Parts: sequence; C-alpha cells; structure tokens
Amino acid sequence: MFERYRRADSPKPAIWNDTLDLLLAHRSHRNYLDQPLPPGALEIITAAAQSASTSSNLQVWSVVAVEDEDRKNRLADLAGGQQHIRDCKLLLIWLCDLARLENLGKERGRDAAALPYLEIFMTGVVDAALAAQNAVVALESIGLGCCYIGAMRNKPEEVAKELNLPPNVFAVFGMTIGVPDPAANAGVKPRLGQAAVLHREQYQWGDAQREAVETLDTVFKDFQKEQGLPEQGWIRQVLSRVRGTDAMSGRDRLRDALKALGFELR
Amino acid sequence: MFERYRRADSPKPAIWNDTLDLLLAHRSHRNYLDQPLPPGALEIITAAAQSASTSSNLQVWSVVAVEDEDRKNRLADLAGGQQHIRDCKLLLIWLCDLARLENLGKERGRDAAALPYLEIFMTGVVDAALAAQNAVVALESIGLGCCYIGAMRNKPEEVAKELNLPPNVFAVFGMTIGVPDPAANAGVKPRLGQAAVLHREQYQWGDAQREAVETLDTVFKDFQKEQGLPEQGWIRQVLSRVRGTDAMSGRDRLRDALKALGFELR
Repeated sequence: MFERYRRADSPKPAIWNDTLDLLLAHRSHRNYLDQPLPPGALEIITAAAQSASTSSNLQVWSVVAVEDEDRKNRLADLAGGQQHIRDCKLLLIWLCDLARLENLGKERGRDAAALPYLEIFMTGVVDAALAAQNAVVALESIGLGCCYIGAMRNKPEEVAKELNLPPNVFAVFGMTIGVPDPAANAGVKPRLGQAAVLHREQYQWGDAQREAVETLDTVFKDFQKEQGLPEQGWIRQVLSRVRGTDAMSGRDRLRDALKALGFELR
Repeated sequence: MFERYRRADSPKPAIWNDTLDLLLAHRSHRNYLDQPLPPGALEIITAAAQSASTSSNLQVWSVVAVEDEDRKNRLADLAGGQQHIRDCKLLLIWLCDLARLENLGKERGRDAAALPYLEIFMTGVVDAALAAQNAVVALESIGLGCCYIGAMRNKPEEVAKELNLPPNVFAVFGMTIGVPDPAANAGVKPRLGQAAVLHREQYQWGDAQREAVETLDTVFKDFQKEQGLPEQGWIRQVLSRVRGTDAMSGRDRLRDALKALGFELR
C-alpha cells in the first residue's frame, strides 16, 4: 500500500495475505535473465488465464505463444523496436478471437449475425484482458516477470500476417515474459490516490480527485528521478501521450486496420 | 486443473502454489449471504485493482462503488433484472474514463486530440478490465465472491445518468460482490482444452482446436446437468448467444450509445 501510493500517511491495511502482497507488488519488467522458463510454466499460465471469467462462457479470445527468435525479432520491429521483445524467452500475443464462433456457425449452418457488432468485438477485448491479467498474477506467483506491449497495435495488419491470424482475429496486446533480472531497478510505479479512481454512489470530478492528481504529479517526479528519467511529473507525461495523432505511433488508424481485419464494428 | 478441464487425463501440474490454486478455483457467484463485507475490503480491492498495469500509466479508468439499495435496484432493472445485483452488498461499476485526462487538458490549456480515437477508448476498456480482474483475485483471496455483469451495457445512457457520468466516461461492466452462500451450487465452469486457445508461433484452426471444441461440448452437458440447466452443450449455447440482434439485449446499439456519451471512436 505504502509503496503503491507513496504516502507515509497511508493507513495500514486492515486485511492482508500473500496473494494481496503479490498483487500490490506488481511492476513491469523489461530486463530478463538469459534463463529458460520452468517446465510447465506456459501450461499453468494458460490454465490460470482460462480460469478468468468470460462473458457467457463465449471464450472469444486466444493467445499465441511465440518463442522463435526470428519471429520475436520481427514482432519487435513491428512494435516500436522494444528490446525486451527480442530478449524475452516467451512472448504472448493476446487475441480477440471471433473466428472460432464464426467457423462453428458456418460448420453447423447457423447464423452468427451478432459477430459484426462493436459489442462482440468489445467482449473479445475484455475476455482477452481478463485472461491476460490472470496470467500475470499466475506468472508472478512463480517468480516470473512480464510487461504488456500496447505497441502490438501499432501495425495490426502486419502483426496479423506474422501470426497467420484469420479474419475476425485481432492482436489486442502482447506480453513479454521472463525471469526478471534482479539487478534492474524496476520500481513499483505510483498511482493516483484512491480518491481519484474510486467514486462512491456516483461519479465525481471534484476537489478530492484534483488533489489526488496533484499529489501523484509530485510523487511521480520522485519516481522518475529514481528511475533516471526526466522529472516531468505525471500530468505532463500523460497529457503528452494523448496530445494528438503524432504521439499515437500509427494507432490513430486502428479503426481502419480493424476493418481490414474483418471487424465491421457495427 | 482437473476440474477446469474435466479431463481425468489432465497432467498433474508441474508447478503449484496457493495463488494458482485460488486462480484455478474461480467461479462466478450469484448467491450471497446477508453479511456485510469486512472493514477495509473495498480499500484493499481498490489498491489491488490500481496495481494492475495501465497503458503508459494513463490510468484511464475509474470505478463506482454502489451500496445504496435503491440505486442497486434501479441498476438491476437496467441490467436485465438480475437478482444478485439487488442482493449483493457491493456493486462495482467499472468505467472507461477519459474525462480525467480531458479535464486536465482543458485546465492546463493543452490539446488532448488523441482522446476521440478508438485506440484510446480501447485503452480505457483494457485498463478497466485489467484492474477489475486484479480486484477479483483480491476479493477471492479474502473469501468473497463476485460476478461480472456484462448486462450493464444493455442501456449505457441510462446507466451513465444513474451514476452521473460525465461525457467520455462509459460503464464497461458491473460486478456484484458478497460473501458467497456455501449452500449454492456454484460449480467451476469447464473451459475449452488448451489446444483450442493456446497457439504455438502462429494461429491454427485445425484438428486440435476442433477436437477441443467437441470435448467441451460433451463435458459442458455434464456441467449443465449438475447445475439443473438444459443440457444443450457448449456449441449450441454459444451459437445461440451470437445468433443475431434479438439475442443482444439492446447491445447492438452500443456504437450509437457510445456516440451519445461523447465517444467519437474515430
């Protein structure tokens, strides 16, 4: 708690256990040792992912496990050249997968007329995200580390081609996985105080949220300093990320890319 | 593992620990005891949610905690009348929240021209889902149970009004939380064998995926029988869910609803 919010006056949690300890200690890892994953790791990570809820048990998601060095390097090139994609032992690409139901419908001669709607696409995106987050908890529980790769959406059609994705399957994000290098300084990233994200009964944009934002802006400078990053604070950093299409690494054309991949998003 | 896939020949996992045990035992709960949540539960659940990754630390999500009986009942009416929404002690509504950055941009006189794009909307949806899934793990670790409510998307504008959501904030899904009634028979729902969802190097729609689908179809009938549900199997059930707009409970108009809530989805 203390580290996540960096507030010395954070109350000591009334409830605590090892799983909470694991969840609250999460940090993204981009530096991995040159060590293989333990045998059975991928299977148990997948079982954890599949144990997450899925809307109406539709299971409109899949995951591709990439270990081939050349393919990892090509995917790294497509995702902004991130070094940890090249370095990791396992790269998971999490998919919104409507092809399974589409194929079943065709094979059984049944209409699947809901598939072209934005709703079902979103169901697949949420399914994939819930599964992926359970995978994160599972892999961290066995001493591994990971990092989500949103940049896997920079060039969706090229990623789809590399992974031989059929129409109506979309790579929502990637995830590098490996044994974290203990020498790397991967700090727990501070977040907004709860007053900013937790609303009671109704949404509020008021003083409490403003104060939480200002507090994070300040403590984020400390974090950036520790990490050897420019001390620009949280507000400047996030506003810079959403300033316009020039900061979107091509993702401003996501809608067109999805159309090309078969998603009507009706 | 055995229960999740219902296969007597499932290999014994090479890796095991208490957190994995918790993840793999997940089941949705719709029957709760008339007991309050323990003090501090909401705070630790929120801290776990905030500890999930968030794209570029944008934190484009929020959550509304609803405990008021009248408001729960009204939201239940908007979400298909589900009884557990009325019964639960805590209803969380998970939001894609672009208003925080929009407000900050306005207040600082900075452009936030990326916000109207589908990409940023999707970032908010994924952020909310990752946070929510961490919340699920946290609440289950302290003996609570929950159920996701996709039906919170049946009438997005009315839900937004009830929660006083500003423009550019959208309720992605709800979640009922309570102390599970041990007398209720909430079984672990079987999933597709790993061959269907876990692809190696490239996506495959082949015999292995087909076989996993057929196997689930069979074991799902056993599950439905145990739960006192019609034994229609998995394939019929899911194809029925995506057969057309008549099965979508109004969610076929999600795109229009999002437009009305301020999301251009450019």
